[in-house]
Amino acid sequence: MILVGIIVVLAAGLIGVLIYLKNQPPQTRGFQPLVEIAAQEPDSSKWGINFPNEWATFQKTATNNTDTTYSGSSGFSHLLRDPRQVILFAGYGFGRDYNDERGHMNALTDVRATKRVNEKTPGTCYSCKSANNPALWNEMGMAKYDKTPFVELGARIDQPIGCANCHEAGTMRLIVTNLALEEALDARGMDWTTFSRQEMRTVVCANCHVEYYFAGESKYLTFPWADGTRIEDVIAYYDALAFSDWKYPGTDTPMLKAQHPEYEFYTAASTHYNAGVSCADCHMPYVRDGAMKFSSHDVKSPLLEPELACGQCHTDVDYVIGRVKTIQDEIYKTKLATEDAIIDAITAIQAAVKVSDVGPVLLEEARTLHRHAQMRWDFISAENSMGFHNPEEALRILADAINLARQAQMKAAQSAHAPSLLNIGVYDGMHPKPVPAP
Amino acid sequence: MILVGIIVVLAAGLIGVLIYLKNQPPQTRGFQPLVEIAAQEPDSSKWGINFPNEWATFQKTATNNTDTTYSGSSGFSHLLRDPRQVILFAGYGFGRDYNDERGHMNALTDVRATKRVNEKTPGTCYSCKSANNPALWNEMGMAKYDKTPFVELGARIDQPIGCANCHEAGTMRLIVTNLALEEALDARGMDWTTFSRQEMRTVVCANCHVEYYFAGESKYLTFPWADGTRIEDVIAYYDALAFSDWKYPGTDTPMLKAQHPEYEFYTAASTHYNAGVSCADCHMPYVRDGAMKFSSHDVKSPLLEPELACGQCHTDVDYVIGRVKTIQDEIYKTKLATEDAIIDAITAIQAAVKVSDVGPVLLEEARTLHRHAQMRWDFISAENSMGFHNPEEALRILADAINLARQAQMKAAQSAHAPSLLNIGVYDGMHPKPVPAP
Repeated sequence: MILVGIIVVLAAGLIGVLIYLKNQPPQTRGFQPLVEIAAQEPDSSKWGINFPNEWATFQKTATNNTDTTYSGSSGFSHLLRDPRQVILFAGYGFGRDYNDERGHMNALTDVRATKRVNEKTPGTCYSCKSANNPALWNEMGMAKYDKTPFVELGARIDQPIGCANCHEAGTMRLIVTNLALEEALDARGMDWTTFSRQEMRTVVCANCHVEYYFAGESKYLTFPWADGTRIEDVIAYYDALAFSDWKYPGTDTPMLKAQHPEYEFYTAASTHYNAGVSCADCHMPYVRDGAMKFSSHDVKSPLLEPELACGQCHTDVDYVIGRVKTIQDEIYKTKLATEDAIIDAITAIQAAVKVSDVGPVLLEEARTLHRHAQMRWDFISAENSMGFHNPEEALRILADAINLARQAQMKAAQSAHAPSLLNIGVYDGMHPKPVPAP
Repeated sequence: MILVGIIVVLAAGLIGVLIYLKNQPPQTRGFQPLVEIAAQEPDSSKWGINFPNEWATFQKTATNNTDTTYSGSSGFSHLLRDPRQVILFAGYGFGRDYNDERGHMNALTDVRATKRVNEKTPGTCYSCKSANNPALWNEMGMAKYDKTPFVELGARIDQPIGCANCHEAGTMRLIVTNLALEEALDARGMDWTTFSRQEMRTVVCANCHVEYYFAGESKYLTFPWADGTRIEDVIAYYDALAFSDWKYPGTDTPMLKAQHPEYEFYTAASTHYNAGVSCADCHMPYVRDGAMKFSSHDVKSPLLEPELACGQCHTDVDYVIGRVKTIQDEIYKTKLATEDAIIDAITAIQAAVKVSDVGPVLLEEARTLHRHAQMRWDFISAENSMGFHNPEEALRILADAINLARQAQMKAAQSAHAPSLLNIGVYDGMHPKPVPAP
């Protein structure tokens, strides 16, 4: 009788525990808000109260500014590292001051420090630099924001890039905050609110890591994606608008400057993108703090922590690092060969322009070829992966750029009836010239 | 008592079975020879008695001659498919008759049928076509074999490629049978007898799938590897010898023809090679016949059975096929652009040669650039993977080839004081010309 009683008590207890467990709310991702965050709150430290791990890692972007072989976050000068770029950007701000980007927390400091900013600079230049933006766009509208002079708008901006640039307060879901991105996606019939979370882990980076231009007198931030996001589409878009960033001195070529088209380049059928890998998978890998698993917000090159970043998918990290090196070395060499070809074209066009009976049609063709070649090269050069985000695309584009640059030189020589303009700058026989270490 | 007896009998029986099993010879790879195969036996059907699965699959290479998008084994004409190659190989046998290789069992038939063979052809041309070779090399020595006229040597050759080209009878281990390969490896300080089996599953393919030339009057089969196996090394080797395959008509360029440098191209730090993948892993994947697992000897493109070939490592075969297509399409486009550039160079040099006061130094530079550009292009064009064996290497080499071809054209125009030679054949503005489907 006592035995039966014990069994009954135990059974009742077990049923009770099971009912208790069943009635628990479904497990969330461990999010227990301590404070409420206002919509579009610019101050990331407030979000950091609820998300101490994300905030602690994000703050590392202020100081963890290490370089990799070809890039990184030290803010090195592209012009000092590769003096060819002084020639390639002559007559434009980037020919005077062109430093590599540092970590996200430095964005505001660095945009204010660059010598490319002056009293004519529009507010548009803050579009990618501050967590104040979503609230300001909401309040002012993007058109007014962009029209406001940089110096004037600066008074309302005190935060670097932060939580509000990618997250919705409360739900913390990833959102597109840059209206220019929303408009560009819309023009291509894409609605980001229907995207999967994994796709958003790439698309939020396109809030900034894209090719863009300032449209019209109002300097309205616009992504040139209406015809597509391949380099050929982007150039066709700019050509149709007769848009140029500057005139090349002595050649009068209407030039284009590429910004940082990581999104366009990576999503152009790259192997990682096609395999479903997002930007965040490699640049914000999952890490642990005790029992908490979270996405590191110390956004940086995967090469700085390959075991964490590459090791989430690849078991053979040493092999992977070797692959990256092989690929980047090849692309770097081809990129420099392209620069030599473009510089030869510039030299020839500059000489042709001075010839009294120069053929105007041929000269104009030479300019167009120069414009097209240099924008192709810059699409790869300005993109922050030395081609690794999409190696075949990089080399395909550089091969085209070399071809067009040499053709520009040839058209210039033809226009000037001057074969003497066909001198070749660097190639010295059998082997490509040894490349100086970066 | 009866019960104890039964237990004792059962226990003894069990022990007996265990002892029997323990004393069995260690399990071999299932090889139980039915007949003894003579050393270097040319007739594969004899080997086939011992290895019916391997032999049955190998025989499929006679008739399983299906094409892929860019290659395959139907024996299609490169000249009909891409008429630019008629120009590029003008004045040489390959400009008259250039068919893609069919399966291994057709090698002998096809070499005898090609219009490139005539009464002057040396025996060397049989080096990659017959399982008679190992025994003949053993008997005659390679020097005498190579010197014997093709027609005369043919009387001693009745077998296509077969077992004896890669296997040692008896042990069935993979061996280097082509003495030219052994000598080429030796010149680079490599001893194939120390290689792992996995490495041999690549190296035996280099018995034939390599760049080679016929050295000297004796037409001695030689691989140009002494300086390395990259295209730059190969060209440097030929330049040092002042070797050429033919003179280009009307330009007098001493030209080089690439053969089928699969081994050199694949082993140049390609991603699959660096990951330890052998040729046989993809082209001779493991298959099953009942309980027997064996390497299919129906050697062919992995694209013809991707689930078997790619699926041994990749779980996402549809994704993999898509990658191959993306990569090959890009490389094909860049390869055609390279051909256009080389043809422009040829046209310019042909015109320059006719100019009475042509500058001889510049003209010679143009020829050298033409030679170097076309051999780079051919290294990719003749290689049987439309660049897929090593995509970055393919695009890097094509970018260099385009650059050198355009420079050749420029030097020709300079030599002739004639900017009119700078016409560009194909590029027609913004976009690369649409590429006709192969």
